[in-house]
Amino acid sequence: MLPQKARQLLLEFLDEKDYRSSIEDRITYSYDASRESCMPDAVVFPKKVAHVSRILEICNTYRIPIVPRGAGTGLTGGAVPLSNGIVMALKRFDRIIEIDKENFCAVVEPGVITADLQTAVENIGLFYPPDPASMDASTIGGNIAENAGGMRAVKYGVTKDYVMGLEVVLPNGETIHTGSKCVKDVVGYDISRLFVGSEGTLGVITKAILKLVPKPEAKQTLMAFFPDIAIAAKAVPDILLKGIAPTTIEFFDRYCIDATREMMGFPIPTETRAMLLMDVDGRASEIPATIKRLHDVCISHGALAVEIAVDAAAQDQLWRSRRSLHGALNTIRPCWEEEDIAVPIARIPDMIRAFNAIGEDHNVLIVSFGHAGDGNIHVSLAAKHGNTPSKNVTAARHAVLKEAVALEGRIAAEHGIGMVKRNKIGWNIDHGTLSFMKNLKDLLDPHHILNPGKVL
Amino acid sequence: MLPQKARQLLLEFLDEKDYRSSIEDRITYSYDASRESCMPDAVVFPKKVAHVSRILEICNTYRIPIVPRGAGTGLTGGAVPLSNGIVMALKRFDRIIEIDKENFCAVVEPGVITADLQTAVENIGLFYPPDPASMDASTIGGNIAENAGGMRAVKYGVTKDYVMGLEVVLPNGETIHTGSKCVKDVVGYDISRLFVGSEGTLGVITKAILKLVPKPEAKQTLMAFFPDIAIAAKAVPDILLKGIAPTTIEFFDRYCIDATREMMGFPIPTETRAMLLMDVDGRASEIPATIKRLHDVCISHGALAVEIAVDAAAQDQLWRSRRSLHGALNTIRPCWEEEDIAVPIARIPDMIRAFNAIGEDHNVLIVSFGHAGDGNIHVSLAAKHGNTPSKNVTAARHAVLKEAVALEGRIAAEHGIGMVKRNKIGWNIDHGTLSFMKNLKDLLDPHHILNPGKVL
Repeated sequence: MLPQKARQLLLEFLDEKDYRSSIEDRITYSYDASRESCMPDAVVFPKKVAHVSRILEICNTYRIPIVPRGAGTGLTGGAVPLSNGIVMALKRFDRIIEIDKENFCAVVEPGVITADLQTAVENIGLFYPPDPASMDASTIGGNIAENAGGMRAVKYGVTKDYVMGLEVVLPNGETIHTGSKCVKDVVGYDISRLFVGSEGTLGVITKAILKLVPKPEAKQTLMAFFPDIAIAAKAVPDILLKGIAPTTIEFFDRYCIDATREMMGFPIPTETRAMLLMDVDGRASEIPATIKRLHDVCISHGALAVEIAVDAAAQDQLWRSRRSLHGALNTIRPCWEEEDIAVPIARIPDMIRAFNAIGEDHNVLIVSFGHAGDGNIHVSLAAKHGNTPSKNVTAARHAVLKEAVALEGRIAAEHGIGMVKRNKIGWNIDHGTLSFMKNLKDLLDPHHILNPGKVL
Repeated sequence: MLPQKARQLLLEFLDEKDYRSSIEDRITYSYDASRESCMPDAVVFPKKVAHVSRILEICNTYRIPIVPRGAGTGLTGGAVPLSNGIVMALKRFDRIIEIDKENFCAVVEPGVITADLQTAVENIGLFYPPDPASMDASTIGGNIAENAGGMRAVKYGVTKDYVMGLEVVLPNGETIHTGSKCVKDVVGYDISRLFVGSEGTLGVITKAILKLVPKPEAKQTLMAFFPDIAIAAKAVPDILLKGIAPTTIEFFDRYCIDATREMMGFPIPTETRAMLLMDVDGRASEIPATIKRLHDVCISHGALAVEIAVDAAAQDQLWRSRRSLHGALNTIRPCWEEEDIAVPIARIPDMIRAFNAIGEDHNVLIVSFGHAGDGNIHVSLAAKHGNTPSKNVTAARHAVLKEAVALEGRIAAEHGIGMVKRNKIGWNIDHGTLSFMKNLKDLLDPHHILNPGKVL
């Protein structure tokens, strides 16, 4: 229950539509895509920066936990109101304020849906590259808070690479402005990145200046079939070293191939144990030569065959296998647990070898797919047999994260730390650095009202 | 004079070579390329992180100002020991620790000279794009501290875009580690950027993980001649919107053309009042088509002629005009003052119109050249006649910065704030944001020992 006085102060400027505490509303905002949940005491829907500021001020005064929330598509519980309190839904901050075509940037509010921004800018010949899997639902604010990644990171980077500036309301209600529309800008400290990926624990983003790039003229897709995942993975750094910059390099291991084989609708050589799915974009006239080079590198690395999609329908067919992967895996086992890790790209073969060993050790099926071009692997783990104890899966997940760390990798690549991996953050970050991060949190949010129980 | 006890503690681990207080050494480290100067009490040359840490601890205990220093090529006084104290020269941190070819990164110490790193990585087919004009002398540590830019920013971005991780010693002597070798990494707060561009006021960088890219196969140069600078500037966003990504887009105004005309050694149409000098890099087979498109865009925007360099010698000749610009301007006026500003690229024509008006108003000659592709303009100002009071030049500089701000631009693009623009930082950054930056400084450096009198 919120303190009576705080509730009263909130209702001075929020009407009934903007302040909700019905059981239905509280349930709706109690969970996110992580399947974790916790009931908030109230949900607020501010429309103006002044409202966000006043809400935070009140929460700060009355020590009420408050969780900013985009679309709730996060996978590590970033938007779950762990300590009850208030959920602040930013859905009314849904304006694309400006698309500044000649300066290659957009000014947007955090509640804009990622795909809507993409459509809007593509309509005028521009491109916003970050493409998290949930982009049809996820919001720009959530993407920034989580530093969302995606398929196109190989060539284009992740959300942080597109944040030029932010308007942020701090927990004390003060509004600050970071960055600018200028490509070169060395005025003052570069504090934008402090908020990007901070998972709503340091401030509430109310506006963002996002970098845009010219829309690529054309795209083509290629699928390469390999006899072994380590061989496929070895081809990846070589592709990049040759100066070929595919937009995406997705890999499938043999389990993923088995699961999707039937829906693929194109021939897969029998001995195939791994596949690389790659997109190339750019000038239409240059793409055929790039695809040819990509083909040749794959063949020289031992690819059994290479399938090139000649038109949009064929591209779509190749991509269908990737898109339907999650569903397809359920035909092998009904229940999977997932990890999101990163390793330097050349360590992918080592990581994959480790999956096999860890799976054997724990009697757990470990399936992996993901972004070979940027080292981000999505790992799915399931009991090998109905009678495998669930603690085996937990132990295998643990071992996977430990191995990633041993390979100079990270325990979280694009899905955040949230509440789920919070107790493991010290595996990647040393004590002194962690203390420094805690000091930053204390400086910004001395009463820990903002998204408590997340990240640190 | 340093406190006797502090000196004694320093000499416990620094030998005579590493701790110097002779008048010659002190003079040598009293100034940087800004022409500002101030005498330090001593100069230290640590070799190890433990030394850096101990030195900072001692300075923190005895409240001794300390200024980290790379090669001293900065233009805004970032390395000048304004409050005396100690200069910490990082020249002994000069190792390229690792070039990790397959993971596209290098691990380097801060004293490595920028051009040396470039040569080392280019020798194995990689590329470190940031190219500040002083790169033959400047160090990576200095580049990171100043977030150095350069010509290639149009396509490749600036130093901050290549910093994947840092080792930093904080003013209290604690060492922290930021970032990783992973492209995707969302573990903890992203604190690298806090130090990039902080001009040595928040910590001392002792190691950096730098992103590398594949070395472009070939390069070609094009010079376009325009009847008017506003027309030339208008072509720039259009070039980028067409998906052409030149490495560099440098512009010259009419004064620069007059100053360099004779040394150019190629015909310039008589009516030329502006030029764009552009490099294109990439696949050798794709460059001719790109150059042709670039040529066509320039012609369609009213270029009088376009000169394409067919070989390395011709490229060098076109570039000679740019490289000799500083020297050539001295043939017009003996004494120039310089400003480094940024505006969103589409505002360059407005900015150039403003130069003319400001020049008229103050009876000052204003010459501009620079990086049209990223909005970074280098402005040179000189008295129009021998009897122009120097306060006119000062007033004109002031007006130039004010106008940049009015055009959504920045008072510093790539040369830092340092001591020189410190009192103007509020022109770009609002009060609340500035307070927040000051709080960050206080958190990291409560006694303000680290490079006092800079940035804030």
